Amino acid sequence: MAARLTAEFLDNWKNEVNPDLQKERETCTFKIEELIHVLDGGKENTIKRKNLENIFFTSYVDLFSFKRRPFMSKSEQYESSVAKSVKVFELRREYNWSEEDFDLINRILNYDFALSLHHTMFIPGIERLATDEQKAKWLPLAQSYQIVGTYAQTELGHGTNLLGLETTATYDRERDEFMINTPRLSSMKWWPGGLGKSCTHAIVLAQLVIDSQNHGMHPFMVQLRSLDDHTPMPGLKLGDIGTKLAANNIDNGFLILNNVRVPRENMLMKNARVTRDGKFIQLSGNKANYATMVLVRVKIISWTKDTLRQAATVSVRYSAVRRQTTLKPGTPEQQVLDFQTQQMKVFPCLAAAYAVHFVASSMMDWYQSAFTEILRGNNSQLAELHAQSAGLKAFLTDMSTGMVETCRRSCGGHGYLQVSGVAENMVSSLALVTIEGENTVLYLQTARYLMKQMANAVSGTKTRGSTAYMNRDLSSYTCPIDSQSDCRNLNKLRELYMQRAHRVVMGVAQRLQMDMESGQPQEAVFNNNMVALTRAAKAHLHLSTIDWYIARVDNLVATCSPALGQVMAELCTFFVLWGIVQEAGDFLESETLGLNQLEWIRQEQLNYLTILRPNAVSLVDAFDMHDETVASALGMFDGNVYQHLYESTKYEPNNRTEVHPSYYKHLRGLLKGGQQSKL
Amino acid sequence: MAARLTAEFLDNWKNEVNPDLQKERETCTFKIEELIHVLDGGKENTIKRKNLENIFFTSYVDLFSFKRRPFMSKSEQYESSVAKSVKVFELRREYNWSEEDFDLINRILNYDFALSLHHTMFIPGIERLATDEQKAKWLPLAQSYQIVGTYAQTELGHGTNLLGLETTATYDRERDEFMINTPRLSSMKWWPGGLGKSCTHAIVLAQLVIDSQNHGMHPFMVQLRSLDDHTPMPGLKLGDIGTKLAANNIDNGFLILNNVRVPRENMLMKNARVTRDGKFIQLSGNKANYATMVLVRVKIISWTKDTLRQAATVSVRYSAVRRQTTLKPGTPEQQVLDFQTQQMKVFPCLAAAYAVHFVASSMMDWYQSAFTEILRGNNSQLAELHAQSAGLKAFLTDMSTGMVETCRRSCGGHGYLQVSGVAENMVSSLALVTIEGENTVLYLQTARYLMKQMANAVSGTKTRGSTAYMNRDLSSYTCPIDSQSDCRNLNKLRELYMQRAHRVVMGVAQRLQMDMESGQPQEAVFNNNMVALTRAAKAHLHLSTIDWYIARVDNLVATCSPALGQVMAELCTFFVLWGIVQEAGDFLESETLGLNQLEWIRQEQLNYLTILRPNAVSLVDAFDMHDETVASALGMFDGNVYQHLYESTKYEPNNRTEVHPSYYKHLRGLLKGGQQSKL
Repeated sequence: MAARLTAEFLDNWKNEVNPDLQKERETCTFKIEELIHVLDGGKENTIKRKNLENIFFTSYVDLFSFKRRPFMSKSEQYESSVAKSVKVFELRREYNWSEEDFDLINRILNYDFALSLHHTMFIPGIERLATDEQKAKWLPLAQSYQIVGTYAQTELGHGTNLLGLETTATYDRERDEFMINTPRLSSMKWWPGGLGKSCTHAIVLAQLVIDSQNHGMHPFMVQLRSLDDHTPMPGLKLGDIGTKLAANNIDNGFLILNNVRVPRENMLMKNARVTRDGKFIQLSGNKANYATMVLVRVKIISWTKDTLRQAATVSVRYSAVRRQTTLKPGTPEQQVLDFQTQQMKVFPCLAAAYAVHFVASSMMDWYQSAFTEILRGNNSQLAELHAQSAGLKAFLTDMSTGMVETCRRSCGGHGYLQVSGVAENMVSSLALVTIEGENTVLYLQTARYLMKQMANAVSGTKTRGSTAYMNRDLSSYTCPIDSQSDCRNLNKLRELYMQRAHRVVMGVAQRLQMDMESGQPQEAVFNNNMVALTRAAKAHLHLSTIDWYIARVDNLVATCSPALGQVMAELCTFFVLWGIVQEAGDFLESETLGLNQLEWIRQEQLNYLTILRPNAVSLVDAFDMHDETVASALGMFDGNVYQHLYESTKYEPNNRTEVHPSYYKHLRGLLKGGQQSKL
Repeated sequence: MAARLTAEFLDNWKNEVNPDLQKERETCTFKIEELIHVLDGGKENTIKRKNLENIFFTSYVDLFSFKRRPFMSKSEQYESSVAKSVKVFELRREYNWSEEDFDLINRILNYDFALSLHHTMFIPGIERLATDEQKAKWLPLAQSYQIVGTYAQTELGHGTNLLGLETTATYDRERDEFMINTPRLSSMKWWPGGLGKSCTHAIVLAQLVIDSQNHGMHPFMVQLRSLDDHTPMPGLKLGDIGTKLAANNIDNGFLILNNVRVPRENMLMKNARVTRDGKFIQLSGNKANYATMVLVRVKIISWTKDTLRQAATVSVRYSAVRRQTTLKPGTPEQQVLDFQTQQMKVFPCLAAAYAVHFVASSMMDWYQSAFTEILRGNNSQLAELHAQSAGLKAFLTDMSTGMVETCRRSCGGHGYLQVSGVAENMVSSLALVTIEGENTVLYLQTARYLMKQMANAVSGTKTRGSTAYMNRDLSSYTCPIDSQSDCRNLNKLRELYMQRAHRVVMGVAQRLQMDMESGQPQEAVFNNNMVALTRAAKAHLHLSTIDWYIARVDNLVATCSPALGQVMAELCTFFVLWGIVQEAGDFLESETLGLNQLEWIRQEQLNYLTILRPNAVSLVDAFDMHDETVASALGMFDGNVYQHLYESTKYEPNNRTEVHPSYYKHLRGLLKGGQQSKL
């Protein structure tokens, strides 16, 4: 008898861990709990995380499970996401979660609830922009969810260039009100999350106009929808902007304001005031606003870590389970994780997930200490903080989106299915390269900072922090790599990154100087060197990344068990070597290394693939992501990828009936249209 | 009075061409019709194309318009796509379109119909695999659409490695039937387009088993669904595999076969036969099968051209219309197409769209002449044709998916909307890197061919065609670039690509040789050098690409008007320079050029941005894509991007009601749950 795949088997398979994955776990050389606690920031945090996971994925699993999500229409996604928001907000009230807990919950739930801007932008906006009196009015309403809000800044025609925003708030002295307008098509607010269908209020950014004089952009509290029946308020038109690559659970919206009147006290007046008689008073600079912008970018770096973790988890587990082809005739098909090319797709992402974890954590520490100083009136770190957060947001999201896509491809055809999880992750993570500052614009901001610092360094003023390398003597450099074994020395490798950054940044600075001296107008000089400036920023940011990563790993090696320390150092060394090979052109062109050194580094990079191989599965297990957070048929802990793929098809709407309705409407006519069949 | 955006304006805007775009068209230096005809392959083809566009987008615009597509649920997409298929098939019958016309229609319609495999795989499969007698039975049924079919090869557990496929067809001598089974979970057919809900028949690939002996993979005609009522036939279970990143209009399906019996004559027996008494007879090799595989890959290269054209059209037009920021205070915001960084994102894709056009066309010519030879029994070109089509499919789809994504990012936030068209294009084009051969596997196939050719060259046997460069004397090379003006000489630049390919391929060949001589087993040698082999294949394929491109441009320059010739040469030179800068590491490492040369090339590449700038819009206009094919609110001919974006929101399902149903179900309870509002 031929073997048969029966219905009984399909319905009754046992959820045992795939033996290939089990075997991988047995080759782990370190204690996995130790690493889990390191990543969580202590055992107590691990416990807290697991408790939170338990609430959402045990007590409310029907609502929060990922399984139906890939099969929902946009409206269904939105509705489910509103339901989740409401539940999360109720639970927040019940458990009195802190902001930090809430960040963790966001991560656990993959940021999959519609009203998240209420807590990430609307309430912080009130706290930052409103006077104490205004806070006393609005915060209790927002905190008790009697109102839900968003932050409406971006317009159809303007994103990055805030100065160009067109919405106006014109003061009407007679009625003591502002009249808010989006005067042109391009002026309508466009993109804010929750704006389309959900929110009752928005902080609307508008150009303040008094007696035809423009006083710049200021925030206004605008009621969008009736608190009785949720219908739009008079004079405004709003809706959902439509389907996106991902995040279709969120109703990003448009808003047209047509002579919408708000009382004078709805201008949030912490930083600037308009008096009853229409006098404009600037109260303080926007350093605190500035700090908020920085904070959001630091948070994005941290989100990037989560996308990398998910992609690495899916692709490493799947690659351990998937078998395909054999290199040696007569032997069983091999795990695709054993192919060198597959390792080269997957391990950089795995290492980067650790790198970005440590960088994000260091950035956050720095932000917090610098912000404390800013509140004390000391702004000395602000310029560097701004340049580094902008640049690293760009550099790390660019790097990670590429890696996530490579991981997706490493899953072959199945990586194209939404239930792969890594497909959804990829398209979601693509938002990060544009939101909160388009990446090219951000690189150029970093580059401007670097040019200033370089000018300082050249003129003898010592630079500090991330640009301290600019004080070095470029000409005295000799390549520290004298043998292949030097390629395992993180300090020597760091030297290479430093020299490359220094040379590339210096090269552009000199070029700019030359162009200026040739009499070209400043804007032409800047525009004609934009590509080079971007390249310089990347070289610098690459250095910052590995610098922070190495520092944290050094620290970890000194404090953790030797077994774990060794693996952490290996992973870090691989990441640093990989970066050099990726940018080989830059390293050669800046004469940081020669052809021999590059060949050693390339070879050593390949050696590390073999070194990392036995711990690969354990290194993703240590992220300890809940199956519901990984949200992937290919990446579950049990590794039963084919069962999970097959099971997912029961949620597919096209499978609701054996014969699809379109047969009766369209196909039958075609099939029966010819001669009568003789079959 | 403040300016107001009124409902009247929103409803009554006039569809005039955006003045920024109009101005761009006036700077065109060549005759655009001439280029349109070149790209269409003659004026008569342009007319034919426009006639076809007219049928679909005028006579049947309601059915074929893209406007609702981004807002449809998966089931709606599928249903609409079935309706389109039926209409296309009816029209095909009516107009008696040729295969070539049908390819063109596919392009015009963005491959957006569900049953396309009927004509691209099922009917060609019968023609290729069936005996004359079998053809006489099945072809009329298929051609008259009494049956619609697909080609079921890939399984849940096996894609690339065809030898590993698990489905069995066991001959039952007693009943003169085959019993077809998918014995394990991993054996079910998974992925074939149209399999889930649409097709009545499939050519199923299965291991032929006679008396427990396996005779390899053979094709079997299997009826999937009743021709009376479309219900699945007994013994099989089938359905849709679920949501994908894109192509959700197509019901890619799974198929479980459980002792499904088909008569012996349902084995398609052109290449092998089973007699009544169970004797297996191999009739011919599979050279023709082989040729079909090659053809599909050549076609994919041609599809790649369409994705590049669409992305370039959208991003160039949008960049000409979008204004953002000013570099010189006090001047109006500038077109983003004037930023050097934006040009660097967009122009490589524009140039590549031309490059791939010419490469695809040359590949197709070569395929046709080689296939004619194969039919005559001359297989001398087959190995090269296979290696080149496999490799170029991989190389060009890798390149183009990256470029399309860069173009999407060049549209900022709006590039994240599905109505941008370029977002959908990007996720669609990602399928191309996996289908019909996973790209890494294909690179390795090319690399194996290169290693053989290199062994020939080294042993004194002259290599020909794409590997002719291997006969050169590597050591006698001197870099032909002696000044920046040499960087405009395509012949000299081609020398660089040749040298780089030669050195990189030679390097890996020597490495393999060394490893073999050191006594490592062959499979280990191959696995340990996979990354290097891939790199060698890319260097070779990059050369092949620019080689073909330059040859076609040389030819064009000799035959077309001087004005057009100049632009074509400029675009080609830019593409060739850009490729060197992209792979600077490889060119330096292979000692193809020195630091001075690289600096010249880098500078000259930037100069070409300025040279190309005035013709950018006209170069995309020359693709002459119908607005319905571009399918983008950002990329329409009239350039009224904000109007088209705003208009698209009326199709958004969340906007069907002012108050979304989820308010009553979920949100109201939260908002009214607190104290009574005092607002």
